[in-house]
Amino acid sequence: MKKERLIYLPLGGSGEIGMNLYVYGFGPPNSERLIIVDAGVAFPNMESTPGIDLVLPDISWLKDKADRVDGIFLSHAHEDHLGAIVHLLRYVNAPVFARRFTSTIARMKLAEAQMSEELICEASVSPNSLKAGPFDVRFVPVSHSIPESSALAIKSPAGLVVHTGDFKTDKDSSNGGLTETSEWYKLSDNEITALVCDSTNVFVRQSGRSEASIGPALNELIRDAKGMVAATTFASNVHRVWCIANAGCNAGRSVVLLGRALNRMVNAAVESGVTPKFPPFLAPEVALELPREKLLLLTTGSQGEPRSATSQLSSGKFRGFKLVRGDTVLISSKTIPGNELSVARVVNRFSASGVKVIEDHYGDYHVSGHANRPDVLDLQRRLNPKLVVPMHGELRHLVAHAELAEANGFRSTVVANGQMLDLNSGFVVEEDCESGREYLDGSVIISAKAGIIRDRLRLSREGSVAVAVAFGRRHEFEIAVRCVGLKSLRGDSLEYAVARSIEAMLLRSDMRYERDEEILEREIRRLARKAVFSEIGKKPMVSTLITGIGNQ
Amino acid sequence: MKKERLIYLPLGGSGEIGMNLYVYGFGPPNSERLIIVDAGVAFPNMESTPGIDLVLPDISWLKDKADRVDGIFLSHAHEDHLGAIVHLLRYVNAPVFARRFTSTIARMKLAEAQMSEELICEASVSPNSLKAGPFDVRFVPVSHSIPESSALAIKSPAGLVVHTGDFKTDKDSSNGGLTETSEWYKLSDNEITALVCDSTNVFVRQSGRSEASIGPALNELIRDAKGMVAATTFASNVHRVWCIANAGCNAGRSVVLLGRALNRMVNAAVESGVTPKFPPFLAPEVALELPREKLLLLTTGSQGEPRSATSQLSSGKFRGFKLVRGDTVLISSKTIPGNELSVARVVNRFSASGVKVIEDHYGDYHVSGHANRPDVLDLQRRLNPKLVVPMHGELRHLVAHAELAEANGFRSTVVANGQMLDLNSGFVVEEDCESGREYLDGSVIISAKAGIIRDRLRLSREGSVAVAVAFGRRHEFEIAVRCVGLKSLRGDSLEYAVARSIEAMLLRSDMRYERDEEILEREIRRLARKAVFSEIGKKPMVSTLITGIGNQ
Repeated sequence: MKKERLIYLPLGGSGEIGMNLYVYGFGPPNSERLIIVDAGVAFPNMESTPGIDLVLPDISWLKDKADRVDGIFLSHAHEDHLGAIVHLLRYVNAPVFARRFTSTIARMKLAEAQMSEELICEASVSPNSLKAGPFDVRFVPVSHSIPESSALAIKSPAGLVVHTGDFKTDKDSSNGGLTETSEWYKLSDNEITALVCDSTNVFVRQSGRSEASIGPALNELIRDAKGMVAATTFASNVHRVWCIANAGCNAGRSVVLLGRALNRMVNAAVESGVTPKFPPFLAPEVALELPREKLLLLTTGSQGEPRSATSQLSSGKFRGFKLVRGDTVLISSKTIPGNELSVARVVNRFSASGVKVIEDHYGDYHVSGHANRPDVLDLQRRLNPKLVVPMHGELRHLVAHAELAEANGFRSTVVANGQMLDLNSGFVVEEDCESGREYLDGSVIISAKAGIIRDRLRLSREGSVAVAVAFGRRHEFEIAVRCVGLKSLRGDSLEYAVARSIEAMLLRSDMRYERDEEILEREIRRLARKAVFSEIGKKPMVSTLITGIGNQ
Repeated sequence: MKKERLIYLPLGGSGEIGMNLYVYGFGPPNSERLIIVDAGVAFPNMESTPGIDLVLPDISWLKDKADRVDGIFLSHAHEDHLGAIVHLLRYVNAPVFARRFTSTIARMKLAEAQMSEELICEASVSPNSLKAGPFDVRFVPVSHSIPESSALAIKSPAGLVVHTGDFKTDKDSSNGGLTETSEWYKLSDNEITALVCDSTNVFVRQSGRSEASIGPALNELIRDAKGMVAATTFASNVHRVWCIANAGCNAGRSVVLLGRALNRMVNAAVESGVTPKFPPFLAPEVALELPREKLLLLTTGSQGEPRSATSQLSSGKFRGFKLVRGDTVLISSKTIPGNELSVARVVNRFSASGVKVIEDHYGDYHVSGHANRPDVLDLQRRLNPKLVVPMHGELRHLVAHAELAEANGFRSTVVANGQMLDLNSGFVVEEDCESGREYLDGSVIISAKAGIIRDRLRLSREGSVAVAVAFGRRHEFEIAVRCVGLKSLRGDSLEYAVARSIEAMLLRSDMRYERDEEILEREIRRLARKAVFSEIGKKPMVSTLITGIGNQ
């Protein structure tokens, strides 16, 4: 039997912020027993994934190894860590371990997909541990921007790995932060083979701030506001939601929750008992009876999502509420890269109707949930691992993180999605592991490699032309043309130009006697494109539809 | 005759950062003599303007008033201030005043469009002034991120308006900055009716920094780099380009200019004599012979533009150059909102091939060209205008700017594109002024209101289906279907499902006897959409092409 090894393989999250999915294995090469940490999604954008509903990690590598998986561990309940759990469980039948709040959310997802919830196991925290094959895994509470986030202390015969999950350093214990005596800091009592660590904020130079630091500003803002106040934040940041609701309550305002995600998260928090008691929430229809200065709306849509409560409020009414001059909107969040234009759109709409918008330009009303550069450095020093493995970041984050570790005297290896690392040697294993992205598109899953998105991007840039040629007997023919997303110079002149050019070709050449549809189609496409280009300078996608070719 | 008035009307730039175009007028209502300040474009994005080449201000309002325009003044040569000059001159035949560097760039644009350059008049600076109808206009040098940027002091019988253009406060005179004795500060000797002021950086809390402050860091970085160095910045920031080139020269490196925009801007700078002497540039083919540590490439593409030199270098070779592990790329710029994903793509590609990328995370290698919040405040205090009019910003910027002015004790009015302001009364004039956006798309101009972009966005989200129905004699028919940007579950099952559903309808109902093409098309579209939705959950754009309907 070959020597056993301890491996690490990211299938998502190492090459992007989001879509986290990490595999650990221990055993003889190619028959390691495996565990999976997190199963997250990424979010689409118009620039690279128009029309897509969700971006999923490609788990092809796991599919034929499903029987080797001894457990799935979810570090916390953010979508980019658990949003793909339904997808994963369709192929991998293994117990799913998560703390109470996280498992509540995971159960909701499975229920929605009409799948059995019986694989979900509620995990208690370190020093308790969970056995999964050769692994012994402990959930170690860390601070983040969602309740019950955890690092994982993964013990195997080949050593201890600390997988941080998403974390920050927040020593204020009043809102779930960590004290010096917590399990998190006790990890340093052990020899650590590898520290697999969050890279999100590696470019932020100053130390992170405590969630508690924004409480006074939130209270003050809501206390001093004159009209109605609407506040939005990440729905999953339940502690922040609680803080804002509480600030409203302190200011004598009744609080209304607007938006599905918020209601869902608050319910899960109440169910799992992870926050102090929320003030009572008022039903929207009841709240509408109250004077506007007595109301605080908590709304979904901090990223400018078009159908969210905040976005709908910005362009009119939502559930009977309408914001007007004198009212205030607070955006208690940061804008995730790629969402800048959506958020600006919402803010500008409010500004146009005289509503005062407080964005978090100066960090008064939002703190990040991720460890900054000095915090990452501090963690390395405390835990003193033999190897630092940057995870959860684009390549530029991973590389900067590794450089930081090396400058700090630690060995570090950058691995991207699909690269397997031997955690004891610190070297990348020369093995081809399939990885990539799949897309949920409507009700189907499509591969990122299938070319469908490439076609859509082309459609959106160059428009679409459909050309039908109907052949009758004796090589008569009729042509119909339709253009979409293209401008005619006058009326239907573009359609006419295309039709005329194809007609001329069919009349002039032997093409109308051609019985090979493919040859005919190629020529029609070429001419249609040429005609459109010469009319308006665009190079559209051309669909050709030939009928009656057998009639000739 | 009605009382004369002094009006201000933004047709671009007040509702966005970019696309600046402002009209000033003096005279009896509705027969004012007019001047235009700037004629800029905005840049498209995939989210709202896919496939578009340029976003232009809608100048319909000006078209029937062209004979009332006495002059066009260009504050500086950035595209968002002069990119629409060709478009404007097609409708407005008035002299164009600009300082030497700006007029050089404007002339290049006209030459490219094969238009006469004779309207361009080179302007000298304050205290010299230019007469345009009832206006007396002086170019007042200000600091910005391009040579010879100017504020305009616009004098009319109704008072003096200071139109800042884009500006910053930079007291280091070594690189074109302003001293306390400059014309800029002398403006305060006059009574100022209105200060029309740049709002871009109104959310930046700390004072702006001097362009000179980054020189030492640039020098150090390039001196200490080991392999080849490629540096990118905004091509129009010629002073920065000069600084970087000079840093390369100081480090014993030969400098190569890569990319059209850079060559163009450097040529214009040399031609107008606005920078110190550049070090000699090496031709790419000559530079390829030198050892890589002796080279500094200056490249276009600081915003991740796909066809730029930087982007092409990140994914392979460009003009024979290839960056490898040990080489360094410096991005000496900020990322304009909306370009985050493009820039990240380029950086990650370099990171993947081991090239070290220095982004400007900490402001070491880039300073903004716009006045920050305290600088704007300082300007208000110095000039003590009767009215502050925020311009060049999204609505959120304009509103925050007005609040700042009011908190500072000044009267301020926010006007958006298409709103006319009486600068003496400070009130918005209740007059409907057409404004908006037009798009250059391929070789044609399309209106933002035409629905073409809405169709393209739908195509990109939902894909496209073309359905051809060819009727023969006796109501026989043949159906052809093509889908683009959509996934079939198996092979051509999607096309098949659509065809079958339409076939069933035609066989079953009276529809095949229907001679009204529109009714038939509507039914086909409905069924095609329904079939696709039930197969894969998408709602595509459907083109219907019916032939032979007259045969029946």
